[in-house]
Amino acid sequence: MLFLARMDVNFPTDMDPEVMADFQAQEKEYSADLQNRGIMKAIWRVVGEYANYSVYDVDDHDELQSIFQGFPMFKYMDVKVTPLAKHPNALSYYLRED
Amino acid sequence: MLFLARMDVNFPTDMDPEVMADFQAQEKEYSADLQNRGIMKAIWRVVGEYANYSVYDVDDHDELQSIFQGFPMFKYMDVKVTPLAKHPNALSYYLRED
Amino acid sequence: MLFLARMDVNFPTDMDPEVMADFQAQEKEYSADLQNRGIMKAIWRVVGEYANYSVYDVDDHDELQSIFQGFPMFKYMDVKVTPLAKHPNALSYYLRED
Amino acid sequence: MLFLARMDVNFPTDMDPEVMADFQAQEKEYSADLQNRGIMKAIWRVVGEYANYSVYDVDDHDELQSIFQGFPMFKYMDVKVTPLAKHPNALSYYLRED
Amino acid sequence: MLFLARMDVNFPTDMDPEVMADFQAQEKEYSADLQNRGIMKAIWRVVGEYANYSVYDVDDHDELQSIFQGFPMFKYMDVKVTPLAKHPNALSYYLRED
Amino acid sequence: MLFLARMDVNFPTDMDPEVMADFQAQEKEYSADLQNRGIMKAIWRVVGEYANYSVYDVDDHDELQSIFQGFPMFKYMDVKVTPLAKHPNALSYYLRED
Amino acid sequence: MLFLARMDVNFPTDMDPEVMADFQAQEKEYSADLQNRGIMKAIWRVVGEYANYSVYDVDDHDELQSIFQGFPMFKYMDVKVTPLAKHPNALSYYLRED
Amino acid sequence: MLFLARMDVNFPTDMDPEVMADFQAQEKEYSADLQNRGIMKAIWRVVGEYANYSVYDVDDHDELQSIFQGFPMFKYMDVKVTPLAKHPNALSYYLRED
Amino acid sequence: MLFLARMDVNFPTDMDPEVMADFQAQEKEYSADLQNRGIMKAIWRVVGEYANYSVYDVDDHDELQSIFQGFPMFKYMDVKVTPLAKHPNALSYYLRED
Amino acid sequence: MLFLARMDVNFPTDMDPEVMADFQAQEKEYSADLQNRGIMKAIWRVVGEYANYSVYDVDDHDELQSIFQGFPMFKYMDVKVTPLAKHPNALSYYLRED
Repeated sequence: MLFLARMDVNFPTDMDPEVMADFQAQEKEYSADLQNRGIMKAIWRVVGEYANYSVYDVDDHDELQSIFQGFPMFKYMDVKVTPLAKHPNALSYYLRED
Repeated sequence: MLFLARMDVNFPTDMDPEVMADFQAQEKEYSADLQNRGIMKAIWRVVGEYANYSVYDVDDHDELQSIFQGFPMFKYMDVKVTPLAKHPNALSYYLRED
Repeated sequence: MLFLARMDVNFPTDMDPEVMADFQAQEKEYSADLQNRGIMKAIWRVVGEYANYSVYDVDDHDELQSIFQGFPMFKYMDVKVTPLAKHPNALSYYLRED
Repeated sequence: MLFLARMDVNFPTDMDPEVMADFQAQEKEYSADLQNRGIMKAIWRVVGEYANYSVYDVDDHDELQSIFQGFPMFKYMDVKVTPLAKHPNALSYYLRED
Repeated sequence: MLFLARMDVNFPTDMDPEVMADFQAQEKEYSADLQNRGIMKAIWRVVGEYANYSVYDVDDHDELQSIFQGFPMFKYMDVKVTPLAKHPNALSYYLRED
Repeated sequence: MLFLARMDVNFPTDMDPEVMADFQAQEKEYSADLQNRGIMKAIWRVVGEYANYSVYDVDDHDELQSIFQGFPMFKYMDVKVTPLAKHPNALSYYLRED
Repeated sequence: MLFLARMDVNFPTDMDPEVMADFQAQEKEYSADLQNRGIMKAIWRVVGEYANYSVYDVDDHDELQSIFQGFPMFKYMDVKVTPLAKHPNALSYYLRED
Repeated sequence: MLFLARMDVNFPTDMDPEVMADFQAQEKEYSADLQNRGIMKAIWRVVGEYANYSVYDVDDHDELQSIFQGFPMFKYMDVKVTPLAKHPNALSYYLRED
Repeated sequence: MLFLARMDVNFPTDMDPEVMADFQAQEKEYSADLQNRGIMKAIWRVVGEYANYSVYDVDDHDELQSIFQGFPMFKYMDVKVTPLAKHPNALSYYLRED
Repeated sequence: MLFLARMDVNFPTDMDPEVMADFQAQEKEYSADLQNRGIMKAIWRVVGEYANYSVYDVDDHDELQSIFQGFPMFKYMDVKVTPLAKHPNALSYYLRED
């Protein structure tokens, strides 16, 4: 099943730049792993904001919850999740690659 | 470029069922065409709501606007558009097929 | 998996009382069936409002969407869905009967 | 009588991990006790958020208020309470166990 | 137990003045009865709005729900209910008469 | 004239417990005095929240403003005031004692 | 005492222009009378909207409520009232004429 | 031209009382000067809040912006500005003195 | 002085297409005239919505209000106006042509 | 293509004035460069707020995102972006110079 998430990152404005860079590196690695395992189907930056829309394919809410809690930057994020069903007009459930 | 849209449909509750079915058939055809032309990359139903999230790949705001205005049910829809940029953690800009 | 829904009913104030009663009778039957099949785990009235909170146990978003669309009063309802995961402090995932 | 609560936890992002773990352990114990006493009928995690929906069965607002104030993490929580009545379509007031 | 309700009335602007007067007369009678039975402890007009704040003393959510549904103008009202507990600073739970 | 106020208290989560207890003791004394002088007609706790609804009977906005500013915890409070008029359905302007 | 009101007018878009003109003429007369009696101290149009901010000087909420209900267009208006106190920095309570 | 402003003051709760008193004294002087120069036509306290509604008469947005930025407490204020036009029902554009 | 307006158009969904086309033709003419007179400096379509952002250069609120009220579709529009001042970083007050 | 942005700046109230002045100087330089390169077509101050509306002309969301992230004060800003299309009533897509 697919889920759409909007994630807003709220770092303290006085965070040490190295600490921030470290968080971002860990996040990138974690995110790549989710993509390689076919769990995170897409992630996009919301233009102008420190936020993303991302799409997840999981079979279970508990699995999804543990994926979110595993994000290295989870405690700085505000996450809103929308469950998605197949749309009657969709030619395929997943996005079509370019 | 990609854009995320959330579209909420507000039909009058007293709309004739045949009129509604006709609108939906036209909408399905229009939507299929956008998918076949590679413009609409995905469309999902928001669970529980007469609403969708959909993803568009166009080069230009005027083209996108004319696509939205072309939806047969446009006058019954409330559309909110979010411009999307490539995310630094994304392995690819587009969603990955199953 | 469990989902919490809040459903608000918006009948036109000039709806014929018999039509309304008929809708409500159909809704009651549909709702009882969902409960008997173990899909709807609970439904409560929000005090003071023509609204409910209800809990669903389904394996799949498409199944859940077709359940919502099957409600006889669906076109008069505003539905908001929240996916629920097991809470680390819960002794059991489901509610405990009295 | 039943009450639905949504509780959002807002820990300071710089809270010492041991302090946090201690709060969570106390909370878990408190929560288990409420469940064992038949007061807290259910508690679920809102997917993606440090938040829960939980259901309480108490006879009295003062009792409910003292239960909320007793949560070890109460001062970090934002709580919204909705009083629930029996729904005319409900086969039973309480949730049905699995 | 006490509950605070805010009720907003939304009559259609083209309602026949006699129909409206009839609704209001029924409402007044119903409201007086609730006051005489000690259920409605207070009702005030929100200045400038067709709305009230009112206070109810009932033992049970089902009783409260049936009281609200009994209001002759119920289908034209938007009702929001807040459960009230005794305040530690209150000299008495109820309002003090003049 | 009556006014309804909703007051939300926002203490810093790291406030010293003795400082907090001292504030609360002062607040209780101040609040008792207002009740004894017939100014504060009622105060209730909003269940689950560090908030109250309270009712004031004063002749003048300047007097009311100075009452609010006199609350020992005023700088930690968010106050919203609603002016109340006599309701045509009210048997008496004030709440009825138990 | 002074009160600030924001009033938004919501006429049906299909109202007969003569009916509308008649309402507006009555409203103008009523408004002039309130100004001549020193009750309405000011009224301004919110630029771009069919709305006003207006200032009232009355001794009593019941009087203010009956003034609002007396507006010929009252049932088409959404009114929000804010009680105003003397500001410590104000050289005079009332506005200064040009 | 007239403008209505709502200004909310947000002082840190741990501000030194002398620093606060100094800010308030400067603000009072600044405000008196604006009133004496005929720029600030009125200022009122919103009852219960550390906020004001105030009315300005200036010929130009740049002048108004520099007036706002000149407030000694500007960086602690949240300001919302509404442009006001003459109302067709107003007997005079300005408020009438008592 | 410049003002930014956001205008949302809300036509009834059952408006006769010829009536709508006539409104739109009148609106286009009115809008062209405002542009030719140097009053409307820009107008853009909000992508996906029947709405625009537009920029006005007028000396006076009364003039601006009469411009808005002159829009043939005014009664179907929801207009929100923001006064704009010169920005310290702007090389020129007006937009720069391509 | 054009984009409208609203940017709100949230500096900590205890920021060192020299640090702030340095940020503002860098921002001004960055902003001037964007204007000279024809990317930022306009920037205006929202009267009364530490906020701007600005207009950007870029061909691509990734370019726009990197422009926003390049603002020296980016981490203190809350940015909301609206994609703009040509309006059918516009005599030209861009604003007209004075």
